[in-house]
Amino acid sequence: MLRKNRLFTPGPTQLLPAAQMAMAAANVHHRTADFRALYSRVLSDLQTFIGTRNDVILLAASGSGAMEAAVSNLTSPGDRVLVITAGKFGERWRDLAQAYGCQVDLATAAYGETVPLDAIAAKLAPETRVVYMQASETSTGVRHDVAGVARLLKGRSDTLLVVDAITGLGTTHFDVDGWGIDIIIGGSQKAVMIPPGLAYCAVSSRTWERMVSAKQPRFYFDLRKERKAAAKGESAYTPATALVAALGAALDYIRDCGDGDLAAGRVALINNAEVAAEMTRAAAAALGLGQFAVSSPSAAVTALVPPGGMDSSAIVKAFREQFGAVIANGQGEMKGKLFRIAHLGYYDYMDTIAVIAALEQILASLRGAQVEFGAGVRAAQQVYARSAAPTLTSVSA
Amino acid sequence: MLRKNRLFTPGPTQLLPAAQMAMAAANVHHRTADFRALYSRVLSDLQTFIGTRNDVILLAASGSGAMEAAVSNLTSPGDRVLVITAGKFGERWRDLAQAYGCQVDLATAAYGETVPLDAIAAKLAPETRVVYMQASETSTGVRHDVAGVARLLKGRSDTLLVVDAITGLGTTHFDVDGWGIDIIIGGSQKAVMIPPGLAYCAVSSRTWERMVSAKQPRFYFDLRKERKAAAKGESAYTPATALVAALGAALDYIRDCGDGDLAAGRVALINNAEVAAEMTRAAAAALGLGQFAVSSPSAAVTALVPPGGMDSSAIVKAFREQFGAVIANGQGEMKGKLFRIAHLGYYDYMDTIAVIAALEQILASLRGAQVEFGAGVRAAQQVYARSAAPTLTSVSA
Repeated sequence: MLRKNRLFTPGPTQLLPAAQMAMAAANVHHRTADFRALYSRVLSDLQTFIGTRNDVILLAASGSGAMEAAVSNLTSPGDRVLVITAGKFGERWRDLAQAYGCQVDLATAAYGETVPLDAIAAKLAPETRVVYMQASETSTGVRHDVAGVARLLKGRSDTLLVVDAITGLGTTHFDVDGWGIDIIIGGSQKAVMIPPGLAYCAVSSRTWERMVSAKQPRFYFDLRKERKAAAKGESAYTPATALVAALGAALDYIRDCGDGDLAAGRVALINNAEVAAEMTRAAAAALGLGQFAVSSPSAAVTALVPPGGMDSSAIVKAFREQFGAVIANGQGEMKGKLFRIAHLGYYDYMDTIAVIAALEQILASLRGAQVEFGAGVRAAQQVYARSAAPTLTSVSA
Repeated sequence: MLRKNRLFTPGPTQLLPAAQMAMAAANVHHRTADFRALYSRVLSDLQTFIGTRNDVILLAASGSGAMEAAVSNLTSPGDRVLVITAGKFGERWRDLAQAYGCQVDLATAAYGETVPLDAIAAKLAPETRVVYMQASETSTGVRHDVAGVARLLKGRSDTLLVVDAITGLGTTHFDVDGWGIDIIIGGSQKAVMIPPGLAYCAVSSRTWERMVSAKQPRFYFDLRKERKAAAKGESAYTPATALVAALGAALDYIRDCGDGDLAAGRVALINNAEVAAEMTRAAAAALGLGQFAVSSPSAAVTALVPPGGMDSSAIVKAFREQFGAVIANGQGEMKGKLFRIAHLGYYDYMDTIAVIAALEQILASLRGAQVEFGAGVRAAQQVYARSAAPTLTSVSA
């Protein structure tokens, strides 16, 4: 049969066609009134999408650039920081803080698990200046307890909370201002359905104060310079104009999903990911597949363990070669041991069912008669029928 | 009349339609064989486009990100460096080196001039670790003498030469390896005709050695990490996939301009910019406009002085409002005092004549009867007729 090019990876995710067209059409100079209006509107829409009144900053970089900004703008060499880590992206926080000469404490758990709050509390020192964590650890498919960590930090006026929500935004409910998340970070190639190349973050008022005394060198990722420029609808350095236009179109689509209300669209998008993730988990269970993230699975991506010691690379390869679909293997030492199917962003019921049916086909090929065709699909359908997920209004161009 | 959206700014420049389409179509994951093949091909084509055998690194950032990389990867706090500056982008080198705690010597000239080589030689100290300069100072339209500075540094084994050629590449001939340019930097929204969001640079072997001892913190812009990943057709952090696809299409177009030879296409593109710049300068002279860059004008952009104390903002505004065309005003304190018309990248004879004719129309509106219609156009036509510029093969889709 035909093989369509489809991404089921937790970033880049499937692109919104209207955003692809907006991106191609954006023959625009960034120091013009038209672009300033677009840029200001995108920053304001991102505030609503994140659900915050804090300043939003957009950077021409991948999400890791915003992670670096959250270290170089907030710390001085020798500062004590706590990194919560149980996966590859937690380890990125550790490496970043070490590259900037911070004294790094670690609260860890095994891959596939989340870090218990009491283990985190035990690692908090009086001098801890920043806590760095993920909302959703993309490498293991685990959701960490951001609200719980925020509660631990209540009343600690000198400890900032920085959350990499690159796959958390659009898949997880956050009360950014209520909980007191000082920096929350997102990326363009995730729930907002456009290609990589933009990072965004929301920054609390006390974080801006911290930057006055923070002593790391910084230039391209200097958040204060960006805030000053953003007030005029500009960026400090040349913005990635085409991606900004794509992001504007994607936020319009998410607003349409909320019947004209972007905050409602955000909730609808999160519910969509939740239902897709639950459908996928139910299908996996029906097919006898183990979940890698048992106790706290993320709605962004489901990490599954192949049956009977099979190398997950064979499953990833079969998806690509037989169906033209890209799913993710495990990262680093998890390669071959798990495979990951994404739900964040532009995926609907039909996508979710299709990827499950393809998985059944692949498992049957690789394992012979042990797979009952339709068992995973049926389990997913039952989840959908029970979920009473509202049908969203918008159908993208 | 209709007003088409056209950019005559020195970045973003007019987009190549084939690249816009490639960008929109790039629904691709970066950890796939297809993308690795694209990425490797783009890096290899960039080598040819730059004209070097040095390693080429691609970054998801604007050009300023690569400038930061050339400071954070090459220096340690307290290092003595020399910045050659006569404009806004030279000042960016100064600010960057200061942000990283370098001891910065300056070799300067007035805006609109280039820095004489003897003034540069006088500022070179035995301990100078890096010399930072522009090939083309976009803010003033001046071309600096990269070959001359490289000659000054011959035999100085401990002094690296870093050239911001963001508007120099594709408008200026460089012998990167012969002259000994240690890092040369380009940006996507310039001669390569695609939107902003990518920076690229070529790095010499002795520069890689310097990085072993350089002590600045660096993470997202860590060039050694990128080189390691590039060897496998990957980037260290998520690449801006859509822009990489666009860049591939643009390099294919430039190859077509050289009848299938990318190095010949580069030469053709440079000659194209040279002719367009000369046409524009001749037209300006015929219209009684002064040039801001008298002694050493760049082929990337022509900076012109409005007649009789007129505010250049009125000309910029008229271009936009009357013809839908965006030209650049002066930057910073040069705002209102000059206007800039770009030649780098995807501009042909018809574009060049059209912008001159529009300028005549605008000057006539603003100044009354003092402008002879067609005088600038005729002067430009005479340059074209004399130039015997070869007609290029490729006509983009």
